[in-house]
Amino acid sequence: MGTTQLESVPEPKYWHLKTVLTEALDSEFSVGEILPNERDLAARFGVARATLRQALEQLELEGRLQRRRGVGTTVAPPRMGVAVGSEEHIWPSAADDAWQSTDCTVALPPAAVADLLETERDEKVHTVRRSRVTHGQPVAAELLYIPASSVPDLSAIDAPSGTARARAVIRELQHLELEGQDQAVELGSVSAEDAKELDRLPGAPVLVVTTRFYADARTAAVSVATYRADTCRLTFGATGGVEIHHDPERHAS
Amino acid sequence: MGTTQLESVPEPKYWHLKTVLTEALDSEFSVGEILPNERDLAARFGVARATLRQALEQLELEGRLQRRRGVGTTVAPPRMGVAVGSEEHIWPSAADDAWQSTDCTVALPPAAVADLLETERDEKVHTVRRSRVTHGQPVAAELLYIPASSVPDLSAIDAPSGTARARAVIRELQHLELEGQDQAVELGSVSAEDAKELDRLPGAPVLVVTTRFYADARTAAVSVATYRADTCRLTFGATGGVEIHHDPERHAS
Repeated sequence: MGTTQLESVPEPKYWHLKTVLTEALDSEFSVGEILPNERDLAARFGVARATLRQALEQLELEGRLQRRRGVGTTVAPPRMGVAVGSEEHIWPSAADDAWQSTDCTVALPPAAVADLLETERDEKVHTVRRSRVTHGQPVAAELLYIPASSVPDLSAIDAPSGTARARAVIRELQHLELEGQDQAVELGSVSAEDAKELDRLPGAPVLVVTTRFYADARTAAVSVATYRADTCRLTFGATGGVEIHHDPERHAS
Repeated sequence: MGTTQLESVPEPKYWHLKTVLTEALDSEFSVGEILPNERDLAARFGVARATLRQALEQLELEGRLQRRRGVGTTVAPPRMGVAVGSEEHIWPSAADDAWQSTDCTVALPPAAVADLLETERDEKVHTVRRSRVTHGQPVAAELLYIPASSVPDLSAIDAPSGTARARAVIRELQHLELEGQDQAVELGSVSAEDAKELDRLPGAPVLVVTTRFYADARTAAVSVATYRADTCRLTFGATGGVEIHHDPERHAS
């Protein structure tokens, strides 16, 4: 792959370089392998360091490369499919090993969350902090907002905060019968607090999943979960695999 | 907001600056307004240009700011909710105004798509190019891969390529009865070709939605759709709004 070829294409140079690099990753490198340094790579492909860096950034966005301080640039393993869309994976359950509750406070939610909960903007709500671990890796940090009206019997419990309180709140929430949920996924950047938990640098791109849970014909809770965008592919449908359900009334033609 | 305050916090400087800027955006600026230039902003908040730029990049990732060549940095409107998860929004239909078919070719799909389709890697498939427009804005560019076995009666149609062919393929696909679908959402970077269609610079972050459609107990088609991450929030559940469905067998406690 000489300089000539890279210069003769109409696409931005780094874009073509990215394609060439992708092919090299597929054919010459294995997962976890450390790439040569930027100087050597730039020389090999006959491009400026700035062009190389742009291409590496793209490949990092696409989950092909990982750049870690003190390690260098390595070939990333394929992204993990993390089930998000089905109730069993997100409706808080005390028996769910994937999610661990780490804290619980009573606090004012962000205005956007208050609007979803249909609570007053000055109304404090239970805020459970949970983290999700898949295959031994932290994949998501979540804040779960629960208005007092969703856990009316909670006052009997005396743990004021922390893990015990979180478990108590979730146990109470379980008494509601979940009627449905809707979700939104959008791009975000990871906060300093979540970054530590997810082993990322603050500001790294993340996928933010906002879930609204319905019970008793109203919003019972809202979850805002921050998923690592570098290692996760969020799946919707039955456990990320094949989902086939028959419903003859739909799309009969 | 002076220099002192920014220096006294343990978070990265640009992160705190981001919070301060967010408050300023909420209180002082309206949607579409052009921000002062970087030099003036850096002076106002008492930070280096590099710090300011990092904070602006974060805010762009979060959809609060738009940076456009020749315009400068403007305050972004709230992201649009774009319904993705329900069949009516993604199963190709000739009557759907949101999606426009622009081309159709017969080509080798990417290896990953061939694996999902369970076709041989050297088997060419119909590849329909569609684009999705919401509120007059391009929001997604899609490639829809359809193996010949899913449209067995297609040979009777003589349009070899282009829009007419695309419509013919989709009409044939409609004869299948959709049995289910599963989806995955992940971070990606926009290709040069899609970038033009989506009015983005190549390499900008995008949300890539891969949908597998099932019919006749096998994969009938695979869609790979690239959504603008700056303007879109992908919604799952009934038309992005309230979805309440009763199913007394689930989560009865």
